[in-house]
Amino acid sequence: MTETKDDTNPSRRSLIGWGGAGLALGAVAAGGAVAMTRTGDDVEPTAAETGAAVAFHGANQAGIATPVQDRLHFAAFDVDTTDRAEFVQMLKDWTAAARRMTAGKTVGDGAYGGLAEAPPDDTGEALGLKPSRLTLTIGFGPSLFAKFGLADRRPDALVDLPKFAGDALDASRSNGDLCVQACADDPQVAVHAIRNLARIGMGKVSIRWSQLGFGKTSSTTPDAQTPRNLMGFKDGTRNIAGTETDRLKKFVWVGEKDGPEWMVGGSYVVARRIRMHIETWDRTSLQEQEDVFGRDKGEGAPVGKAKERDEPFLKAMKPDAHVRLAHPDANHGSTILRRGYSFTDGTDGLGRLEAGLFFLAYMRDVSNGFIRIQRNLATDALNEYIQHVGSAVFAVPPGVRDKDDWWGRTLFSEEA
Amino acid sequence: MTETKDDTNPSRRSLIGWGGAGLALGAVAAGGAVAMTRTGDDVEPTAAETGAAVAFHGANQAGIATPVQDRLHFAAFDVDTTDRAEFVQMLKDWTAAARRMTAGKTVGDGAYGGLAEAPPDDTGEALGLKPSRLTLTIGFGPSLFAKFGLADRRPDALVDLPKFAGDALDASRSNGDLCVQACADDPQVAVHAIRNLARIGMGKVSIRWSQLGFGKTSSTTPDAQTPRNLMGFKDGTRNIAGTETDRLKKFVWVGEKDGPEWMVGGSYVVARRIRMHIETWDRTSLQEQEDVFGRDKGEGAPVGKAKERDEPFLKAMKPDAHVRLAHPDANHGSTILRRGYSFTDGTDGLGRLEAGLFFLAYMRDVSNGFIRIQRNLATDALNEYIQHVGSAVFAVPPGVRDKDDWWGRTLFSEEA
Repeated sequence: MTETKDDTNPSRRSLIGWGGAGLALGAVAAGGAVAMTRTGDDVEPTAAETGAAVAFHGANQAGIATPVQDRLHFAAFDVDTTDRAEFVQMLKDWTAAARRMTAGKTVGDGAYGGLAEAPPDDTGEALGLKPSRLTLTIGFGPSLFAKFGLADRRPDALVDLPKFAGDALDASRSNGDLCVQACADDPQVAVHAIRNLARIGMGKVSIRWSQLGFGKTSSTTPDAQTPRNLMGFKDGTRNIAGTETDRLKKFVWVGEKDGPEWMVGGSYVVARRIRMHIETWDRTSLQEQEDVFGRDKGEGAPVGKAKERDEPFLKAMKPDAHVRLAHPDANHGSTILRRGYSFTDGTDGLGRLEAGLFFLAYMRDVSNGFIRIQRNLATDALNEYIQHVGSAVFAVPPGVRDKDDWWGRTLFSEEA
Repeated sequence: MTETKDDTNPSRRSLIGWGGAGLALGAVAAGGAVAMTRTGDDVEPTAAETGAAVAFHGANQAGIATPVQDRLHFAAFDVDTTDRAEFVQMLKDWTAAARRMTAGKTVGDGAYGGLAEAPPDDTGEALGLKPSRLTLTIGFGPSLFAKFGLADRRPDALVDLPKFAGDALDASRSNGDLCVQACADDPQVAVHAIRNLARIGMGKVSIRWSQLGFGKTSSTTPDAQTPRNLMGFKDGTRNIAGTETDRLKKFVWVGEKDGPEWMVGGSYVVARRIRMHIETWDRTSLQEQEDVFGRDKGEGAPVGKAKERDEPFLKAMKPDAHVRLAHPDANHGSTILRRGYSFTDGTDGLGRLEAGLFFLAYMRDVSNGFIRIQRNLATDALNEYIQHVGSAVFAVPPGVRDKDDWWGRTLFSEEA
C-alpha cells in the first residue's frame, strides 16, 4: 500500500491543471469507489481517499483482488531479445513506467519539458485523464521458461493447458511469453498503458495478440449487482470477492507450501477468448436459455429460487445446466477468481457479430482450478452456443514491494 | 422533444428495480449532463431533468447535434430483401425498437413476461443499465437508391466519394446500403442496440461491417476541454457545437432550398476508418509532432499562441501543418461537424496496434464539405502517419417526429 511521492515529476493532471476535470472521460470510479472532487493539483490522490488511483506496491499484484474496473486491454507479448540483461532492464523500465502510469503520471518526467528533438517519453493521449483505477498486472508464459536459462525455475503448477472438447483455438490469439493485463475505468487509460509498455519494449518484445474488453462480466465486489454477459444473463454471482481473505488464500494466492519460492504471493491466470454464437442464442426460447444457465434471466435466481444470491439447489437444474456443472460442489470444492470482460470486435466475414466473453481467471493451482472445472464443463449445455477460440496461461509473480523492486525480480534476481 | 410514456410496458429499470443503480456501469452522464440520483422506479427520466435519456423524436435525428457520448458502435448493413413492403415494415420495426431502447426500455413488452417457448423480444444484456444517453441515427447509402425503385429520389448531394491521394480502402470495411450509428455513455448499451436491430432485421438485412469506438475525439460541447486523439493531440477544437444554431443551419442541416424535400432536416454523414501508424508516430520527435499538427502537444495552443482556443495564425505554421490545411480559411469557409471516435482493434499480423480514428462527420453538402477539405489535405504532413482504410457516405434523413412516424417515411411514403 506504499505510495511513492515525487513532487518534482509532472503528473498527467498537473500538466494541464484541473480545468478539464469536469470533462475527464469515464473517469468516475465505479464499484463503490468515490468520485474525485478535487480542485487543486498539488495533492496525490490515494486509493482509500478517492478510489481513483490503485496502489501499485504490495505483497500481491494489483488487478487480481482489486474491485473490477470497467474496461480491459490485455496484451500477450513474444520476447525477441536473447540478451538476459537487456530483458531484465526492460522489466525494470516497465515497472518504473507502470508505477507512474497507475498513479496518473506520464511515463517519463521529460514528456513535455524535455528535448524537442527527441520523441516524447509519453505518447500523451492520457494527458488530462484521471488515474481511473488503472492496474497493470504482469504474467510469464510457459514458453518464457525455455529462454534465458529459466527452465529449472518453471513452476510445476504452470502446466500447459490440455485440449478441451470443442476447442477451436487460433494460434495467433493464443499463448505468449509474457502478458500484461491493463484494467481501468477509462478505455483510453488502459490502451495508453499497453501502448507505452509496447513502445518501451520495442526491439526486445513485440505484441503477439491483444484484446479489448468492456462491461465487467464478474464482480469481485460482494454486495454489488452482478453484471450481465452478452447472453443477457448474470454470470459470476458466487465469484471470490477481493475482501474474502480466506478464499483468496485458499484458491488464488500461491502460498509458501506451494512453491516455488519466487512465486509466493503470486497466482496463475488463464485467458480464454470465448466466441458466442450470438445469432443462434438470440433465436433460442427463453425457457431453453434459462435451462442452459440454470437461472432465470430477469433476476438471475437459481432454478426454483427467488433471488440471485439464494443458495442454488443443483438437483433442481437440468444435468447439463451451466451453473450446476461449474459449481464448486460439482468440482471437488474447486473455484477460481473470475475477472472476464465482454468483447465485440466488429463483424466476422459472414455478417455475424464477432462477440463474446474474454474469460480471465486467477487461481493458485491451474490443474485443480481451471482444468478441473473446464473438463467438467465438457457436457455443458452452453457449449452449443459458444466456442473457445483463444487460450493462454501465465504465472503471475508476486507484487512489487517498493520503489526499488521490479516485475520479475524474484524470478530473475540471483539473490532471490 | 416528445417523450412517449407507456406505463404498461416494462422499462429496463423497473424490471430489476433500482437496487443495482449504484453499480450501473459507466452510466454517469458526461459532457455537462447531470448524473441520475433517483431511488424510485416509477418515473421516466427526461433529458432535461437528468441527461440520462436523449429524446428520440424531433425535427432532426438525435446523435448529430447531441453532445457527444463516450462510446460508439457503428454498423453498416447490406439489404438482402427485394420486397419493398417487407423492407418498409422492418424500418417501422426498427423505429419502434429504437424509440424504446433510447428511453431505456426493452425492445418488446413481452421480454420476460411473455411466452417461455419463444425467444425473448430483447437480448437482455442491457437490463438494469440506464439509458446512458443512447442515440440511434440511421443513414441511407448510395447503393440503396439502386433498389426498390428509388433511383430518382437519390439526392444530388449524395455523391460517391472520389479516390483521395493515399487511400488504401478495404472493400469489406467500406460502403453499405444502410448505416446505424449508436452512441451511448456505456458500451454495453450501444452494442445491445445494434445487436437488437440486426436481430430484428434478420433475413432482410445483414451487417456488412461495424466499428466500436471510445473516447470522444471531438466535442460538440463548446466550453468543454477537447479530448485527445491517439496521437496525443487535442483535435476538433473549433468543431461545430450543438448549440450553434446558425452554424448548424449553414453547414449541417439540409434546408428547404437544398432539396430533395424528403431530406429537409436531414444531413449527410461521411465515415472514414483512419489507421494511425502508431509506432512510427511514437518515434517522432516532439518538435516534428507539433509541426505536423500546428499545435503544441501539452496545451493544444496553435503555433505561437498560448491557449488552445486562441485564434490560430495560420501563416505561422508550416505550409503542410494539419490545422492550417483543415482550417475553414483554407477551404473557402467550409467546415463540417466532426463526431469521430478512437478505436483499438487489437493487433495486426505484424505486432503493431491496429488503432486510429474512426472519423465521422456530418454536413449539409458532401462536395463542399468533406470532399473539398479532404482534397486540400492531400499535402497534409499528417499523411505520413495515417492511412484511410475504410470509407462510406450516407444520406441521413430528418428526425422521427412522433410515435406514428418512422425512419425513412419521407423517402418511402407515397404521401411524403
